[in-house]
Amino acid sequence: MSVDSSTSPAPRAPQDGGSVVISVDAMGGDRGPSVVVAGMAASAAKNPEIRFIVHGDEAQLRPLIDRRKALAGRCEIRHAAGIVTMEDKPSQVLRKGGDTSMWSALESVRAGEAGAAVSCGNTGALMAMSMLRLRKLPGVNRPAIACLWPSRNPQGFNIMLDVGADIRADAPDLLQYAMMGASYARNGLGVAHPRIGLLNVGTEEHKGRAELKQANDLIGAAADCGDFDYVGFVEGGDLPAARVDVIVTDGFTGNVALKTGEGTARLVGEFMREAFANSFMSKFAALLAMTSLKRLQKRIDPRRVNGGIFLGLNGTVVKSHGSADATGVSAAIKLAFTLAKSGFHERLAARVAQGAAASAGASSEGQDAGATT
Amino acid sequence: MSVDSSTSPAPRAPQDGGSVVISVDAMGGDRGPSVVVAGMAASAAKNPEIRFIVHGDEAQLRPLIDRRKALAGRCEIRHAAGIVTMEDKPSQVLRKGGDTSMWSALESVRAGEAGAAVSCGNTGALMAMSMLRLRKLPGVNRPAIACLWPSRNPQGFNIMLDVGADIRADAPDLLQYAMMGASYARNGLGVAHPRIGLLNVGTEEHKGRAELKQANDLIGAAADCGDFDYVGFVEGGDLPAARVDVIVTDGFTGNVALKTGEGTARLVGEFMREAFANSFMSKFAALLAMTSLKRLQKRIDPRRVNGGIFLGLNGTVVKSHGSADATGVSAAIKLAFTLAKSGFHERLAARVAQGAAASAGASSEGQDAGATT
Repeated sequence: MSVDSSTSPAPRAPQDGGSVVISVDAMGGDRGPSVVVAGMAASAAKNPEIRFIVHGDEAQLRPLIDRRKALAGRCEIRHAAGIVTMEDKPSQVLRKGGDTSMWSALESVRAGEAGAAVSCGNTGALMAMSMLRLRKLPGVNRPAIACLWPSRNPQGFNIMLDVGADIRADAPDLLQYAMMGASYARNGLGVAHPRIGLLNVGTEEHKGRAELKQANDLIGAAADCGDFDYVGFVEGGDLPAARVDVIVTDGFTGNVALKTGEGTARLVGEFMREAFANSFMSKFAALLAMTSLKRLQKRIDPRRVNGGIFLGLNGTVVKSHGSADATGVSAAIKLAFTLAKSGFHERLAARVAQGAAASAGASSEGQDAGATT
Repeated sequence: MSVDSSTSPAPRAPQDGGSVVISVDAMGGDRGPSVVVAGMAASAAKNPEIRFIVHGDEAQLRPLIDRRKALAGRCEIRHAAGIVTMEDKPSQVLRKGGDTSMWSALESVRAGEAGAAVSCGNTGALMAMSMLRLRKLPGVNRPAIACLWPSRNPQGFNIMLDVGADIRADAPDLLQYAMMGASYARNGLGVAHPRIGLLNVGTEEHKGRAELKQANDLIGAAADCGDFDYVGFVEGGDLPAARVDVIVTDGFTGNVALKTGEGTARLVGEFMREAFANSFMSKFAALLAMTSLKRLQKRIDPRRVNGGIFLGLNGTVVKSHGSADATGVSAAIKLAFTLAKSGFHERLAARVAQGAAASAGASSEGQDAGATT
């Protein structure tokens, strides 16, 4: 996997005999801690380099972990009695705070004990707590959540951000998303020179909202220093396209697009199952095509792309779907591992600093300086 | 089909022996007039009540139409030499205006000769020309484009609007979209008491942009007088859901969602074809399951849902996809026919007037009156 060469690797977590430590919040997912531990075990069985610090109710976690051979000697439990539920509002969570498994999981990243944190908990609460404990990276105005999207590209996925950290984004925010998305594409997907697109309702330069036209100029001007290609405006139909690797948008539009895409894939999957259950002949055909259908299912399986990344904080946080099963949790852990091992966090911080400098340079030349570059 | 009972049917087009006249712009689609004429012929063969006024270059149209038996004696040609191309900007189009087939097609609706117009041309140009020739309905601030979305509902489709007429919408605009969408659901899909949802990034009342919270109150308060149910906020994953019939959003978000959904369905379709072409066994299975696969393809076929409706004008305009084939054009014509026959335009105008009155009433009680209802 080719990685960002702009800074030398400087992994942040203590490396124990070449191992990478991931901090896991075992509570708060819809399916409870047993599914999270099962996902950890699946990752551990496949990946000898991985170790865990796991946070939650020790009385529940101890027997679950002891039952899994793959986790023997590779898993430290940190007891935390409180749980952030899906119903908790961010403000409530910050009050009950320090006692929860979510807080404790972030603390391990903050203290440098773990290279990344993974949680299946409440997204709003996790973002609020991450902002409070890890703080925003210097130069970042709005952190973002990036997701992976099945695509026609060789790496199999495109990246879209923001998909819901903040419902607003102005032009300098969108530039930061571009810089952070490019760094994530290099370190998470191994795309050496990512192509960035800005989501709009048309590809013509005169279309769209005022902040998009301004961001179009800013991102175009930053392409060289950010070591990416800027392909300009892209449309909703381009999210899986081979002409772009990273799609930049505000958190409102990105969240609607993400859920629309997931919902459409689910609908087509349901229609397909109904079609094959329709007659004896089609059931027989489904049996014959089993291998192909399974391969297809794997390709569009939302569990495989499980793991939104919080970008723009002092530390890497992976948000797994609340309803993720063991396969989904394992996918989120794999992503956290890949990023922690690549020294992603330090590389991202360096890029953001570059972007801030570029943006400041552009602003000091006046509001419409971007239009002339 | 149950229709809106709030006003008595008053079809606008001259009814010739029970027939309904549709005005068709035969030029300007990506595939040329032969595909449009083929679509008209397919509709005419299935529907004895339909008649056409077709607009475009007579020298091209005459032989295409003479070749189709189904169109014999049911099709009047109006010569128009100019064509609006996909590249034309709305401003250019308005200058060359009167000479084009698009202009001429709208003129037939304006003059009351046809019950609805259908065009495969440039969306921006068609909207600009429709605004100029048909004018906005009294009380409508921003017209909208409504699309159909495959869904789990008995009627097979949900309605989403606006999908691209205007990139902005404030709370009173969103209320108008709700009133217009409800009327379209009644007259176009036969849903007697439509359920309306407002697209947001979460279903909790505290989420989302300020104008959405305000629209939430306005639409909720108008549900009784508008004869619809208001289900509150819905998310991207609910677009095909059975808990809602009409999804209201601004044209920027709606356009991104529409193209994202279409793109995802196309991607899954490609993956499916690749999966079945993978081995001898799977090719054989595909052969066996042919009938089921064809049924599936028909269910997710974007051509079947072809036809965005322009709402909020003095006349019904159906925008077909520029790349529509004969099946797609025929679907758009069928939709135009259904709406023209139901007296949709007059019913919609009555509803908009009601909505404007309700909205004015709410404002006169002060800015946050809606919150208390």
